[in-house]
Amino acid sequence: MFSEVHNRVRKAGQAPGTPTYTGEHSTTPPRITIITYESENTKKTVSDKIDESLLETKPPTLTWVNVEKLQDVSIIEQLAKRYGLHPLTVEDILNVQQRPKVEEFEKYIFITLKILSWNAKTKTFAIKQVSLIVGIDFVLSFQEVETDIFESIQKKICNPNNKHLRELGTDYLAYRLIDAVIDQYFVVLEGLGNQIEEVEERIIAAPTTQNSRTLYQLKRKMLQLRKAIWPMREAISHLLQADNTIITSFTHVYLRDVYDHAVQAIDTIENFRDMLSGMLDVYLSSLTNRMNEIMKVLTIISTIFIPITFIASVYGMNFEYMPELHWRWGYPTVVGVMGLIVIVMLIFFRRKKWF
Amino acid sequence: MFSEVHNRVRKAGQAPGTPTYTGEHSTTPPRITIITYESENTKKTVSDKIDESLLETKPPTLTWVNVEKLQDVSIIEQLAKRYGLHPLTVEDILNVQQRPKVEEFEKYIFITLKILSWNAKTKTFAIKQVSLIVGIDFVLSFQEVETDIFESIQKKICNPNNKHLRELGTDYLAYRLIDAVIDQYFVVLEGLGNQIEEVEERIIAAPTTQNSRTLYQLKRKMLQLRKAIWPMREAISHLLQADNTIITSFTHVYLRDVYDHAVQAIDTIENFRDMLSGMLDVYLSSLTNRMNEIMKVLTIISTIFIPITFIASVYGMNFEYMPELHWRWGYPTVVGVMGLIVIVMLIFFRRKKWF
Amino acid sequence: MFSEVHNRVRKAGQAPGTPTYTGEHSTTPPRITIITYESENTKKTVSDKIDESLLETKPPTLTWVNVEKLQDVSIIEQLAKRYGLHPLTVEDILNVQQRPKVEEFEKYIFITLKILSWNAKTKTFAIKQVSLIVGIDFVLSFQEVETDIFESIQKKICNPNNKHLRELGTDYLAYRLIDAVIDQYFVVLEGLGNQIEEVEERIIAAPTTQNSRTLYQLKRKMLQLRKAIWPMREAISHLLQADNTIITSFTHVYLRDVYDHAVQAIDTIENFRDMLSGMLDVYLSSLTNRMNEIMKVLTIISTIFIPITFIASVYGMNFEYMPELHWRWGYPTVVGVMGLIVIVMLIFFRRKKWF
Amino acid sequence: MFSEVHNRVRKAGQAPGTPTYTGEHSTTPPRITIITYESENTKKTVSDKIDESLLETKPPTLTWVNVEKLQDVSIIEQLAKRYGLHPLTVEDILNVQQRPKVEEFEKYIFITLKILSWNAKTKTFAIKQVSLIVGIDFVLSFQEVETDIFESIQKKICNPNNKHLRELGTDYLAYRLIDAVIDQYFVVLEGLGNQIEEVEERIIAAPTTQNSRTLYQLKRKMLQLRKAIWPMREAISHLLQADNTIITSFTHVYLRDVYDHAVQAIDTIENFRDMLSGMLDVYLSSLTNRMNEIMKVLTIISTIFIPITFIASVYGMNFEYMPELHWRWGYPTVVGVMGLIVIVMLIFFRRKKWF
Amino acid sequence: MFSEVHNRVRKAGQAPGTPTYTGEHSTTPPRITIITYESENTKKTVSDKIDESLLETKPPTLTWVNVEKLQDVSIIEQLAKRYGLHPLTVEDILNVQQRPKVEEFEKYIFITLKILSWNAKTKTFAIKQVSLIVGIDFVLSFQEVETDIFESIQKKICNPNNKHLRELGTDYLAYRLIDAVIDQYFVVLEGLGNQIEEVEERIIAAPTTQNSRTLYQLKRKMLQLRKAIWPMREAISHLLQADNTIITSFTHVYLRDVYDHAVQAIDTIENFRDMLSGMLDVYLSSLTNRMNEIMKVLTIISTIFIPITFIASVYGMNFEYMPELHWRWGYPTVVGVMGLIVIVMLIFFRRKKWF
Repeated sequence: MFSEVHNRVRKAGQAPGTPTYTGEHSTTPPRITIITYESENTKKTVSDKIDESLLETKPPTLTWVNVEKLQDVSIIEQLAKRYGLHPLTVEDILNVQQRPKVEEFEKYIFITLKILSWNAKTKTFAIKQVSLIVGIDFVLSFQEVETDIFESIQKKICNPNNKHLRELGTDYLAYRLIDAVIDQYFVVLEGLGNQIEEVEERIIAAPTTQNSRTLYQLKRKMLQLRKAIWPMREAISHLLQADNTIITSFTHVYLRDVYDHAVQAIDTIENFRDMLSGMLDVYLSSLTNRMNEIMKVLTIISTIFIPITFIASVYGMNFEYMPELHWRWGYPTVVGVMGLIVIVMLIFFRRKKWF
Repeated sequence: MFSEVHNRVRKAGQAPGTPTYTGEHSTTPPRITIITYESENTKKTVSDKIDESLLETKPPTLTWVNVEKLQDVSIIEQLAKRYGLHPLTVEDILNVQQRPKVEEFEKYIFITLKILSWNAKTKTFAIKQVSLIVGIDFVLSFQEVETDIFESIQKKICNPNNKHLRELGTDYLAYRLIDAVIDQYFVVLEGLGNQIEEVEERIIAAPTTQNSRTLYQLKRKMLQLRKAIWPMREAISHLLQADNTIITSFTHVYLRDVYDHAVQAIDTIENFRDMLSGMLDVYLSSLTNRMNEIMKVLTIISTIFIPITFIASVYGMNFEYMPELHWRWGYPTVVGVMGLIVIVMLIFFRRKKWF
Repeated sequence: MFSEVHNRVRKAGQAPGTPTYTGEHSTTPPRITIITYESENTKKTVSDKIDESLLETKPPTLTWVNVEKLQDVSIIEQLAKRYGLHPLTVEDILNVQQRPKVEEFEKYIFITLKILSWNAKTKTFAIKQVSLIVGIDFVLSFQEVETDIFESIQKKICNPNNKHLRELGTDYLAYRLIDAVIDQYFVVLEGLGNQIEEVEERIIAAPTTQNSRTLYQLKRKMLQLRKAIWPMREAISHLLQADNTIITSFTHVYLRDVYDHAVQAIDTIENFRDMLSGMLDVYLSSLTNRMNEIMKVLTIISTIFIPITFIASVYGMNFEYMPELHWRWGYPTVVGVMGLIVIVMLIFFRRKKWF
Repeated sequence: MFSEVHNRVRKAGQAPGTPTYTGEHSTTPPRITIITYESENTKKTVSDKIDESLLETKPPTLTWVNVEKLQDVSIIEQLAKRYGLHPLTVEDILNVQQRPKVEEFEKYIFITLKILSWNAKTKTFAIKQVSLIVGIDFVLSFQEVETDIFESIQKKICNPNNKHLRELGTDYLAYRLIDAVIDQYFVVLEGLGNQIEEVEERIIAAPTTQNSRTLYQLKRKMLQLRKAIWPMREAISHLLQADNTIITSFTHVYLRDVYDHAVQAIDTIENFRDMLSGMLDVYLSSLTNRMNEIMKVLTIISTIFIPITFIASVYGMNFEYMPELHWRWGYPTVVGVMGLIVIVMLIFFRRKKWF
Repeated sequence: MFSEVHNRVRKAGQAPGTPTYTGEHSTTPPRITIITYESENTKKTVSDKIDESLLETKPPTLTWVNVEKLQDVSIIEQLAKRYGLHPLTVEDILNVQQRPKVEEFEKYIFITLKILSWNAKTKTFAIKQVSLIVGIDFVLSFQEVETDIFESIQKKICNPNNKHLRELGTDYLAYRLIDAVIDQYFVVLEGLGNQIEEVEERIIAAPTTQNSRTLYQLKRKMLQLRKAIWPMREAISHLLQADNTIITSFTHVYLRDVYDHAVQAIDTIENFRDMLSGMLDVYLSSLTNRMNEIMKVLTIISTIFIPITFIASVYGMNFEYMPELHWRWGYPTVVGVMGLIVIVMLIFFRRKKWF
């Protein structure tokens, strides 16, 4: 949440379209995967720079360039020049604190999304950016870090037996990439769902000081998730309504499916938020309940012992003329009265259902 | 709530349109009911597989295939082939954690809904999926489990005297199936309504620790219900606005009626949620009230006895020169003063309306 | 709220359009008022069944049939047959737990509304249903119970001097009936408003256990009211936008007025709800305030007497060598010290503004 | 809030369009100001009845009739007849509990608004109604009470040097009147804003019982204001979108400005409401904080003195064989132990940061 | 929030279009920067008044006039006359409590925005107004105070090597100015974000009385920010949808980018608000938790010592016939019983997990 703002501040005053990478800089080189394919052939090269000759393809050959790590601005500029990208598109690719969105340009569609990656050890997630440029015969994908979420699609596209995927256009490939991104969301939601279930059990069992903080941390994570996923719904909906030549009606059906998945993710987040609110109520009422319990113990003990201690004090007075002190049955009588008071008090509390 | 997410995670990485059943696997075989009917004739067969010759009908003969239990993917694929279903439709039928929706394809309308079934013993409900495919001369219905909710419609359609239902098209049959599904919602709402009334009475009577948990459980159930029913309203509304040849204007009037029922179910859920919120407020204020009561008891007892115990302590001191100790009326005087203090205190509390 | 759900459950499984009365059955017969009128003539008959010859009118004679108590389904079917009502309309008339709505059919407009009737004695209200069928030359009104809300309109229409009302069409008559229904809402709102004002005063004065329950009861009533009135706004708005030959532009202006009244009723309900929420806050903070007061009394008394009681206890010890006990001024000195402690404590509490 | 409802109840059963004044009746006569003007001439008469000859003007002469106090229904009927007002318009003018609205009729636009007047002494405001009828060559304004808010406009229109205002049409005059009404809103908002600032300071300083009531009163006032101003925004927006010959494009720009003012008033109200909610949170947490402080004092005193009082009680026992009592240093030792306990306790509380 | 209202009140009664400056008056003279430029030439003059000869430019020469400090109304009137500004535009420029908006006039677009400036020392921000007038060959910018936010753009436009900016039209210059304004928002959001992070840490660590006030102050600031930024989103969106000749399709892409930034600022504000609400919950539950801790200490101490003090009191009674007092092992037995009671109590509290 804060990094976006910090980043915007750092960029303030720059001319628009200035290509500046706003993410963390890595010490290892970027990884660039170029796949050129047509129905029968595929060619895949992995390198840390771009051999422009590889991009010299003509339809029906299609090209997919996947860039991982964006610190080397010159690579993005090289691709921008080759494919005629707008300066703002280049800026948006490099500005990894972008809000998810879809923008249509004359020759391509620009899509920027968030990749969520779940860290099973620390039980937290990272939000990274991926941008897609979908042209009529090329797809460019830019990832902030090296991930393996597009690996299985790369394998399938290079698989000689999987003609199907190669025969469909770049719009279908883009759909597959978006689908792969959204699939990751459910991994994160599963992880957080498990945490919510755990804290739910703990709160039902017994309220501890830790609970309210855990609830707060989970709520905060939900806010982050929501911020990443909500605008994506709009973005895909925009893509569905768009009227352009790149998205075919064949792919349209599939995008509608991806849209449904995004809506389902959002529904889940909203439900999680409602559940967390409900748990907070349970927690707060448990606290008050617990206080009631503590107060009851104090009150029962005090109310029983304070009156009989008073009686004992009375007969501890040193007055010369206190006839009771000299009675033969004075002591047992007083003890008996005390016992009676205790019994009366216990009945009183029993009636009030205090124990 | 969680099963959807788990399921999505399991499916991540699969190619779209891969037919995978995501529900629980049953050990008993599926039940397939094929009913072919026209105005005067009906033929009904129940089996655990599909005899394709039964599907070789021509208009005006209409076909209704009802599949219960979806673990045998080959059955769904067989039907998909016969009726030309889109791969995503097949995937959606098998993915029983689908969000309710309506999708129009060229040759059929795909409708996926939730069946709610109330378990009167455990006072809980189960959410299962049913998908409908409505074509011009066929209706396919796919249920996650074996239920009897369509039984009465089957009987009516096979009843020789009930020509009416057989003379109307597949769209009317689909309407009857949707209507049967929504009728079940009110059974569940009735069950939950009873629980809400019970807890309402209990909370008005006396607040116990259990209350806040019961409220939370009911709220959680409302969230689940809402998630199942809300999107259905949109789906049916979409169906009403759709412009296709399958839904006749005759059936349109009936669908509007079904839409009203869905809205009524949603209204009821929202009202239940508001009531639960209201009850939580009552519960929390009861807790604080109860604390006040406890504190009052403690304060009254303490405030009465602490001062007079002090007086008794004073005359329990062992000073050599304490003239009061030797007075003839010292003891009665002190006891009288104590009595006076008690009376003053009681008047004070009375005035403050503490008892 | 609950009756609707119970009713839906009872109807589950019935074929749509089955005429079933879902309200309470009365032991007295229904009352049917048939008024046929044209500019100069009126004829009114009251009976417990329908004499069909009375319905044999031709334009410009208009007919108004008012049915009170719906238990005799045959009467409604008789009218349905005469005026060509859709089976779903008949079902909706008899299903008195309908959501307010307006439905346009080819030959008539179907309007179903809620009548609220205030019981000044019990300070509660009942919700009953009224349905209107407005055709080009007939108006049918169906009421769940016998009421007098349409009486004054009946009188006016039969009044020989009141040509005006008779000269306007059935749409104007329908408007007058709707207007009469909505007028009743303000009677109920007035009654509840008085209750809210009372509880407001009581809460400002002193918080008692009863308050939170009263607030809850009022909130619950607001929910019921809202459920009855909200959909009516939509319904009338639908009527205003509708494009049909029955509603003339003359009446349109009047319907816009009725719409404004409905909006005003809803505004009032929303304001009442906001006020109730505000009162709950006042109540809860009063409770905590009260607890503070109680705790202060306890703390002041304890803090004053506990230290001096300790001093008294010290000089109540039986040590052989306690020189103070034998001093001539020991006792007065100790009493003086005690007095000093009391004064210091009182100043301390004064400074803290505890009293 | 309540007066509206009471009024509606009183009117229930009346035929629509019955002219009934629903406000308070004044003992002084109404004030009617008739101004007829054209570019070079103006004529102004003030009376308590209408001289119809004054209304016999022809374009380009324009007429403005301003009626203050509406108890004399015949005056309004006289004007209604002269200018052809619809019966419902007359009813709405006289019903001073109207919701702000704009209605277009064939020959005029009907606008009904609320005037807020701030009473600087009592720090409260009154809500009164003003209705405007804007025709092509006349403006009628009806005020519930005598005010001076239109006085400056009257002066300007009669000022021989101020040709500008006279040369613009009736629509511009109407705009000026609406503008004058909205200007008053900010006077009320300023008054309430001052109150909010005061209560804000007081709450930050120290929470008292009075605070929650003051907050509630302010919230209630905000509700009233909102109810008066919200619908006005809609009304003016409706006026802006309307397609009629009375509002010229010249005046349209000015109405857009008035619309902005209304939006600003609403924004301010919403912000005030948010601030009041925030203050309630501060107040409630202060209460709990204060309770914590009280409890700390009690606990510190009790925890220090209860143990040492116990020790003193032990040595106050009268057992024959208690060797410590006869020791030479018994007393000082016990006193020393007591001192030690006190010190330990104080360190304990210091560590817990209780003081 | 309050200044707007005060200002409106001061203006009440003025004729619309009266040019009145509503901000604070400065003692130093205004600063007027006139830049005239075309592709190859630029001319910049800074003065405290306007030399009209400088404005006598002809296309393709473009003019940018930047006025800082608005107290000298005559300057604005001079410009208004030269460029044909509408009286309401002049009024809006001078009324520095304007709501952000965009208004299209025949010959120019009027844009009014808020500049936020962060004061790093006091950690607060100031809200000032800037208005832009964008014509086909001129841009006028009016700032309430002297700032340096447009300085870098002035430098770039005068930089002989930066032909690019000079070759684009006035719409692109306007975009650059708006962009510079929005960039400042993120500086303020960063500053507030840091404060929120600090208070978050402090609340998680330990709740103090100060926390709720800090939270309230931050919430209040968020309200102010929201009020300044929300309407700007609408305004820019309005600009994007507008259909005029001034905004070219080239600049349209850039404005879309600025719109995204505004949305991101709003998202951040909403997230901050949600976080502050979450923190308040943490804080309130911490308070109750703390109370529980205090009560536990009191209850443990009381419950242990009150019973044994009672026993000591019993044997402090002065009855003549108390056999225990004369037993040889009476004293050790009683002390042993007391020890036993203490141990039992400690076990009891241990079981209840009170320490």
